[in-house]
Amino acid sequence: MPFDPQEKPLATLLAPDILDLLEENPSSLAAETEDLHPADLADVAELIPREHVAAFLAALPKARAADVLEYLAEDLRAEVLEEIPTSEAAAMVSQMTPDDRADALETIDEDVADDIVSELPAEARAETEKLRQYDPDTAGGLMTTEFISVSEGATVDEVFASVRAMARSGRKEATYAIYATTTEGRLHGVLSLRELLAAAPGATIADVARTEVVSVTPATDRQEVARITANYDLIAVPVVSESGHLMGVVTVDDVIDVIVQEQTEDVQKMGGMEALDEPYTSIGFWSMIKKRGVWLCLLFIGELFTASAMQGFEEELKRALVLSLFVPLIVSSGGNSGSQATSLIIRAMALGELQVKDWWRVALRELPTGLTLGAILGVLGVFRVVLWQRMGLWDYGEHYWLLAMTVGISVTGVVAFGSMVGSMLPFLLRRLGLDPASASAPFVATLVDVTGLIIYFMVALLLLRGTLL
Amino acid sequence: MPFDPQEKPLATLLAPDILDLLEENPSSLAAETEDLHPADLADVAELIPREHVAAFLAALPKARAADVLEYLAEDLRAEVLEEIPTSEAAAMVSQMTPDDRADALETIDEDVADDIVSELPAEARAETEKLRQYDPDTAGGLMTTEFISVSEGATVDEVFASVRAMARSGRKEATYAIYATTTEGRLHGVLSLRELLAAAPGATIADVARTEVVSVTPATDRQEVARITANYDLIAVPVVSESGHLMGVVTVDDVIDVIVQEQTEDVQKMGGMEALDEPYTSIGFWSMIKKRGVWLCLLFIGELFTASAMQGFEEELKRALVLSLFVPLIVSSGGNSGSQATSLIIRAMALGELQVKDWWRVALRELPTGLTLGAILGVLGVFRVVLWQRMGLWDYGEHYWLLAMTVGISVTGVVAFGSMVGSMLPFLLRRLGLDPASASAPFVATLVDVTGLIIYFMVALLLLRGTLL
Repeated sequence: MPFDPQEKPLATLLAPDILDLLEENPSSLAAETEDLHPADLADVAELIPREHVAAFLAALPKARAADVLEYLAEDLRAEVLEEIPTSEAAAMVSQMTPDDRADALETIDEDVADDIVSELPAEARAETEKLRQYDPDTAGGLMTTEFISVSEGATVDEVFASVRAMARSGRKEATYAIYATTTEGRLHGVLSLRELLAAAPGATIADVARTEVVSVTPATDRQEVARITANYDLIAVPVVSESGHLMGVVTVDDVIDVIVQEQTEDVQKMGGMEALDEPYTSIGFWSMIKKRGVWLCLLFIGELFTASAMQGFEEELKRALVLSLFVPLIVSSGGNSGSQATSLIIRAMALGELQVKDWWRVALRELPTGLTLGAILGVLGVFRVVLWQRMGLWDYGEHYWLLAMTVGISVTGVVAFGSMVGSMLPFLLRRLGLDPASASAPFVATLVDVTGLIIYFMVALLLLRGTLL
Repeated sequence: MPFDPQEKPLATLLAPDILDLLEENPSSLAAETEDLHPADLADVAELIPREHVAAFLAALPKARAADVLEYLAEDLRAEVLEEIPTSEAAAMVSQMTPDDRADALETIDEDVADDIVSELPAEARAETEKLRQYDPDTAGGLMTTEFISVSEGATVDEVFASVRAMARSGRKEATYAIYATTTEGRLHGVLSLRELLAAAPGATIADVARTEVVSVTPATDRQEVARITANYDLIAVPVVSESGHLMGVVTVDDVIDVIVQEQTEDVQKMGGMEALDEPYTSIGFWSMIKKRGVWLCLLFIGELFTASAMQGFEEELKRALVLSLFVPLIVSSGGNSGSQATSLIIRAMALGELQVKDWWRVALRELPTGLTLGAILGVLGVFRVVLWQRMGLWDYGEHYWLLAMTVGISVTGVVAFGSMVGSMLPFLLRRLGLDPASASAPFVATLVDVTGLIIYFMVALLLLRGTLL
């Protein structure tokens, strides 16, 4: 029966029964759960007490356990693989697809991983060692080496027979597409299973394959792979070497995982911390303190300069204490406009809409935008001071109009400055080879706060000299 | 030849040639561009002057133009469809897949859309009218109605023959999976094209189809559809009615678009503004001012309360001006810790790790986290005051230790308060039916700033009464 996962948290329903089975009759577990999706079994494994997870996986057939491992949360999977005997771990991971196997080994202790690899069957070992060499953040680190490639000269009927044989063998090749190679082994065309079905049986693959193949190299960054997949609506992207040889295929399910992971990292960095790399619900207390505390301390140290800036203007504050009343308002305005600008630019960069070379176009755009937004807020600021004075809510003294103008002009300047800093910081970070998403709202606010104070007191010195100052 | 889009901005290279062809020899355009991917042609259309886009599409065969339209940026596509004669628009959109056709009509003027629909062939018109009824943010709004469904009783060979016939007919059914229905038309099973190939020719579909089908209803929110697709590594999700009838299929390419769009909206809201709904690089100046200005004004009005809070403590400021020096430091610390907490919670909610009911678990976690982080920063704050005094960099007076303790304790309290507000605000927004991503760093900072000032001056009154105050 179809079911709707959002209405039935299936794993929560299943977990108690599976736990009972595990204690009372583990040999029946395989048969009792054979109709379930491995993703749901993985959810169950995440819900039951950790000490039972290894026994749960051991009670499943090896191929089934491998499927569940592929869906398991990274940290739990690593724990299990490090805990169970090496031979058992090798038997399980040998059943995984090559890319998932390499991913699983990537996240565990390197010595344990080496031991497991040494116990794999020869072919799987060779494949795994090759894939483990690639940076996990590249196409090489994402790709599977199981794909269907055929010679251009083969006929549709021949290829069809071999695809059928492969499907029946139960191997897990990515059958999204069939790749056609030249006699030298270079990737030259692609066709979908559907296009293969539509083709005349006697035609050669060269006749029917599409020859404009969008591809990436093993070194292509995983974000670029994701962008290409989304742009061309692909369900698999071939990975080719410099010399044009097909080395692997990145499938769309892995691309979705990349998109979601990258986004999680971006959002957390934009919040002004290190990326957690673990779910909020499962990360340990001290890991969380570390990931948040380091940035918070750096930002605090940056903010300490505001105290120095305030000290620099202590004479002015003594003479016109009224100036201190608007300090939080002024500095926060710059931080807010900076936060908007930096979020916009970080996202446009992540979407590939903006490159480093576009910085001056953005600067030319943010300057009038910031000034306009600043002017709007400046008018509100002037209005606030004058309104309170006229309504008798507060007495800013006889020069209240000058004070109102000081607030208004400062807000305009600080907001425009915030927009500029917020929009330029991501470019600067990327230029320095850092992640533009680290240009968090708090980071921008910290940069803007000290300057905001200086702008405010400078405007005050200009406008109020001879009256309040 | 394979090419690597990131190294060759193909559209930029092609645009001038295509523009020349369009002016000199439009009839040859179709043949000259027939090897190009429609996504690249859409990129070209976005690069050439807008007044040529309609002519460019008109020079392509209708089915090809429809493909290009599917990849075109929404605003440009809407402009073109509104500009060209209705009959021509109808001829183009009738060639689009039903889901893309409904999407395209969704974004244009409703009267124009109605005119175009009325000129569609009867079958396409009925399909389109049905799809247009669904909210574009639901599974119904995303699904295509072209899919392969077969009766459970059919044999593998029969189904195979009909899939082949369908592929040859050139229709665009989503052939990712074959859906098996009962005699009453209810969805009962699914099998992939690969599984169909592997099956014995004489078997019935009921024998070989998997019966645990993950499905959604037409009303399922598009974010939930994305979450399910990612969780189960699907490339298509069937959409079934309440009564279990198969109504359509959401394909993975549309899911990726949803994920990317939702992320863009989240990031922009988290930056403290409305979602732009257009690329940063193409949005008009005044639209941008509006999207950013509204929130910026609201935040500014919120921040105005800091001026009132400061006024409330003017007596204390007069007596101990030194307190004003640390005001920006104190308020920004709360904003920063709040920004971290809100980003973490918003993301964990978007990933489905946290539900509204988890609010108290989060509160129980953020309180000790905030207090610990606050204590760390508080120590830094104490250290700063004492160090400056001892090194003779500044004279905070004889009671400098009391001042240092005031700063330290206030920072601890404000940081802990910031974490609480930042983590609870997304829950509150969701509870009110609003988007938790609107709990931006600036929004949280604004909420925390006034309270932060009050905490600071309260601590000062307690510790400094009889000395500085």
